[in-house]
Amino acid sequence: MKKLYIVGLGPGGGQDMTGRAKAVLENADVIVGYTVYIDLIREDYSHKELFTTPMRKEVERCEMALELANGGKTVAMVCSGDPGVYGMAGLCYELSEKWPEVELEVIPGITAACGGAAVLGAPLMHDFCLISLSDLMTPWQAIEKRLRAAAQADFVVCLYNPSSHKRKDYLQKACDILLVEKSPETPCGYVGQIGRDGESATVLTLGELRNAQVDMFTTVFVGNSQTKILGGRLVTPRGYLQR
Amino acid sequence: MKKLYIVGLGPGGGQDMTGRAKAVLENADVIVGYTVYIDLIREDYSHKELFTTPMRKEVERCEMALELANGGKTVAMVCSGDPGVYGMAGLCYELSEKWPEVELEVIPGITAACGGAAVLGAPLMHDFCLISLSDLMTPWQAIEKRLRAAAQADFVVCLYNPSSHKRKDYLQKACDILLVEKSPETPCGYVGQIGRDGESATVLTLGELRNAQVDMFTTVFVGNSQTKILGGRLVTPRGYLQR
Repeated sequence: MKKLYIVGLGPGGGQDMTGRAKAVLENADVIVGYTVYIDLIREDYSHKELFTTPMRKEVERCEMALELANGGKTVAMVCSGDPGVYGMAGLCYELSEKWPEVELEVIPGITAACGGAAVLGAPLMHDFCLISLSDLMTPWQAIEKRLRAAAQADFVVCLYNPSSHKRKDYLQKACDILLVEKSPETPCGYVGQIGRDGESATVLTLGELRNAQVDMFTTVFVGNSQTKILGGRLVTPRGYLQR
Repeated sequence: MKKLYIVGLGPGGGQDMTGRAKAVLENADVIVGYTVYIDLIREDYSHKELFTTPMRKEVERCEMALELANGGKTVAMVCSGDPGVYGMAGLCYELSEKWPEVELEVIPGITAACGGAAVLGAPLMHDFCLISLSDLMTPWQAIEKRLRAAAQADFVVCLYNPSSHKRKDYLQKACDILLVEKSPETPCGYVGQIGRDGESATVLTLGELRNAQVDMFTTVFVGNSQTKILGGRLVTPRGYLQR
């Protein structure tokens, strides 16, 4: 059977990988991925054929993986976090129509929302939205609309891709939209380099977040109306003590 | 140091557990959890002290874990999926104010949204909301408001706790709210018993989902306006092929 596994490494690629992800990588002939993610696992899998492609070459990367699988190799394409959350799983399925003999299987990983939440405390205990602030493939208007809806319905909000060289003020713009409905005192947090060297966590208010500088390796959390800071941790009660 | 780990088992408690979760369980003196989750790992950890409490006894369970940790044992409290997503992490932090010497650490796991998405294909590739349909601790009005906001802003929606004995028609009510904005042809899916014996996946339209019968061990996915069914898989394109 011709097989392509799309594998989530979790946030750091190490201890947060699942047993299933490890077993798939050990069984693969070839591992394909974005250079930065391959570097996270290069040491452990140096005996495998490793193929890397740079950023923005997502279509080429997936086509390479499908082509290699079609040629009879067992291929694992690795993604940081979960391949099913802003990762490569969808693109692989879309492209796989050209390689109908290749069977795809997604191996889930810990996505940054869950990994970062664990570092901060427990901000995602109630209904939440994941929103990417990258407008490379999504019109900014659609992002704005989702931010507004999330704030109006009092969701906890987790922001992916909050900033980049070209989008330095996007987090500020997003906070301004959230601040229409949410209080500037709303507890928030952000985590950089989750599960990697240099991991750092910050707890602050939405008003302060508006003026914070974060980079593209940061995941941002904005509380709902019930979120509190308890002993320095960001915690959204689910309601067990109120019922 | 007095320590309580709140550990995510992932969907099934087996292959989808992370290396970090496994290491924590192996290092623990005591493992505490809801009976059903302890049963998932009982065989592998029969040499540990295992404490179980029934459903609805969440406060007692967390207090027991904190008390044991305070007594000097290294305690792991296990949750299905991710303890930070509708799990016990938040409640442990809330209660821990009574046991200030106990340090808490959350070990994230694969939540049902990510585990179920991987089974169905790639439905969560773009911005999505997680909404629990349980109104045990959340007024139904708040749930309705979130469903409406999610539909209006074209989020993919993932529903937790879609049904129970007392809430047989809640999924139908939720679908009716989503159908105000979303087409009845919107591709949807649901997965039962993710990662466990009897795992089953169904792909269908929102119109069909409205009349489906699902149980409390099911996670439901409702696509956005771009979600498609490709070769039987539920796939939300992120836009790589459109840019």
